[in-house]
Amino acid sequence: MEDVLLHRVVGKLKAILLIADGMADRPLKELEGRTPLEAARKPVMDQMARTGVCGIVDPISPGIPPGSDTATLAFLGYDPFEVYSGRGALEAVGSGVKVLAGDVAFRCNFATVDRNLVVLDRRAGRISNEDASKLSESLRRIKLKKSLNASFLFKNTVQHRAALVIHGPKLSTAVSDSDPEVNGKKVLEIRPLDKKPESVRTAAITNELMREFRKVLMEHPVNRQRVARGLPQANIVLCRGAGAIPKLKPLPELFSIKASCIAAVSLIKGVCKVAGVDLVNVKGATGTPRTDYLAKARAAVQTLETHDFVLLHVKAADVASHDGNFTLKIEIIENIDKMLGYILNKVDLDSTYLALTADHTTSCVTRNHEGDPVPVAITGPYVRKDGVWEFGERACAEGGLGRIRGLDLMYILMNLVGKAKKFGS
Amino acid sequence: MEDVLLHRVVGKLKAILLIADGMADRPLKELEGRTPLEAARKPVMDQMARTGVCGIVDPISPGIPPGSDTATLAFLGYDPFEVYSGRGALEAVGSGVKVLAGDVAFRCNFATVDRNLVVLDRRAGRISNEDASKLSESLRRIKLKKSLNASFLFKNTVQHRAALVIHGPKLSTAVSDSDPEVNGKKVLEIRPLDKKPESVRTAAITNELMREFRKVLMEHPVNRQRVARGLPQANIVLCRGAGAIPKLKPLPELFSIKASCIAAVSLIKGVCKVAGVDLVNVKGATGTPRTDYLAKARAAVQTLETHDFVLLHVKAADVASHDGNFTLKIEIIENIDKMLGYILNKVDLDSTYLALTADHTTSCVTRNHEGDPVPVAITGPYVRKDGVWEFGERACAEGGLGRIRGLDLMYILMNLVGKAKKFGS
Repeated sequence: MEDVLLHRVVGKLKAILLIADGMADRPLKELEGRTPLEAARKPVMDQMARTGVCGIVDPISPGIPPGSDTATLAFLGYDPFEVYSGRGALEAVGSGVKVLAGDVAFRCNFATVDRNLVVLDRRAGRISNEDASKLSESLRRIKLKKSLNASFLFKNTVQHRAALVIHGPKLSTAVSDSDPEVNGKKVLEIRPLDKKPESVRTAAITNELMREFRKVLMEHPVNRQRVARGLPQANIVLCRGAGAIPKLKPLPELFSIKASCIAAVSLIKGVCKVAGVDLVNVKGATGTPRTDYLAKARAAVQTLETHDFVLLHVKAADVASHDGNFTLKIEIIENIDKMLGYILNKVDLDSTYLALTADHTTSCVTRNHEGDPVPVAITGPYVRKDGVWEFGERACAEGGLGRIRGLDLMYILMNLVGKAKKFGS
Repeated sequence: MEDVLLHRVVGKLKAILLIADGMADRPLKELEGRTPLEAARKPVMDQMARTGVCGIVDPISPGIPPGSDTATLAFLGYDPFEVYSGRGALEAVGSGVKVLAGDVAFRCNFATVDRNLVVLDRRAGRISNEDASKLSESLRRIKLKKSLNASFLFKNTVQHRAALVIHGPKLSTAVSDSDPEVNGKKVLEIRPLDKKPESVRTAAITNELMREFRKVLMEHPVNRQRVARGLPQANIVLCRGAGAIPKLKPLPELFSIKASCIAAVSLIKGVCKVAGVDLVNVKGATGTPRTDYLAKARAAVQTLETHDFVLLHVKAADVASHDGNFTLKIEIIENIDKMLGYILNKVDLDSTYLALTADHTTSCVTRNHEGDPVPVAITGPYVRKDGVWEFGERACAEGGLGRIRGLDLMYILMNLVGKAKKFGS
């Protein structure tokens, strides 16, 4: 009986939360009414279900399809309805762009338009990182008119993707997108979404910047070369998802822990960074189905030596689901199972809690995020092991955790590692 | 079917809620992976589970370790996040000290300090009630300087424990403790926790009072006698947990019921009193493992004749858990089972609902309150009996109530006795 008591006293109890992006699904005819998770061979996950306590989780609330950003905020213990302030800023932060309180950030695309500003290719032929970097460098040199009283940061991330941050006094996220979201439609003027002077001003600054960007891009040698190589020009920047940095009490303060995150996707990195979570970069982690699963598992085990909590995020299953590729999804789940096997073999099971869940259901049929609950299993010392025999959307619904909310999970884990603060006395 | 209808019409449906403090636990290796509750021989509780509807309850919210004060507030139907305002005032009220809206109350200890105000014994050798009463009488005669524009009440309760209430205009609970919480540390100056003049003023009044207390105690004949008898002097009063009276709409108003409480512990009595619940004193109810269980059960049955609702609180299991004594905990659970047996034998089962739960999990391993959910069972006419076969943390998780919050329980009970107000039409 002394072991856990001792671990707690010396602050040794630790937790890993593995979030498999979009892993949950709906039953498929092609799988004889099973979900990809139910159909996969996943002995380690099933072992977790058998030795742990299981349940189902509504990442946001029942029936609400979560984004990966809102779901991750919730799984870190924040109420997304209170703190979420758009994707733009989170993705920018995750890409290494500095976003300050009061800034407005957009997600951007390099795109191809014709003379009438009709979008021919929203991704400018999935422009290479190299070309995008050269273009970005030129865009960064632009000076905004002094009268606008604002400055900006612009950074390309992967292929056509980029982040734009507007900095200055009195800005607002209540502005529309310039990105029409589909090819064949005209680029939109950015409009203020309310009548506040801050919103009017932000729209004006962003429109002005978009015009300046276009001027530079139209004349740019990289685009002349692209034409010569038969590639679509990156002759405009489209922007969407105006967002600000959410005001969060950081996790280390909330729970007196050192927390870390292993994720390839900049959105998840951004969420973690604003929550005061240390980012661990892993070579070979790509956010794709071909990511280096074991490298991430190794990093998680290593990071646990210096941190109390590790959020381990794997994007791959979501990618396969958006393509409706359930065969690939099953393969990915089986790879994640091997990751878990590695972790369970390496950590000290007397002092480590391991939680497994998905940030949302992504249906291979609808190819979208859905609002169905996701399964969860928690193993570790003295958990109230239940009768659940396998890890799956339906098996876990019979578990001892019942049906919880995403934002409960962090509190449940912190309670197990002895870091939850008592309320009352 | 007419009987319940009739009972309801004439207002005869009643409910007893038995809260076994800290009764829930985690699986123990020493009990072959069972919890003390699962290991105990408790035929009546199991019978309740079999004939009633069961579930698990998060007294506060998932993962949050509750205090007995916040949990009891929740079980009475109040949102503790909204109404809780510190333990001091609740404990003072429960000890029979009058606390008015605007007053600030502290929990106090008679303690022993050396010349440099280093605490030698936080409990002054667990001073007798007799000595403490004599000292308190002298302290009460102290007059505060007129310029402070405040008065106070001071009352010793059990052994070294006492309550202090400051009364006057413009007071604040945002002040720190003078109690350093451990022996060997110096007594602390009470500091305002914010810059408001009310907090500065409250700290100044309390510090002044502490100095006056000390002057009287140092010269007191009781302390001279204690030295002569080789006992540690009670030469200082330490205070902690500044609190105000929560503003609650009383239960009789909320549900049009006459409610009563049987509890030995002054904190629980205080919570009930501020909720407009009548306190019933029971001879032999001590709040310890040797309390007179049957006397409390008899009192509950009797009280039900004049009241619609009885909260029956038993402290003992929590005491055993804080000592890590799972053998004693099992014995206590078996005693509580006998209490329940008595009650079920004596009440009219056609008109009485009986609910059984714990106010929190207290782990015999960590010896602390934990944020794990607690089991609940409700028996009575026409409840939706489920398939749960025994009363335990895990068995109840499969029950028909699912996973609920502490503050739901009172509404569920009031619904059963026909006292819940319809919302809508």
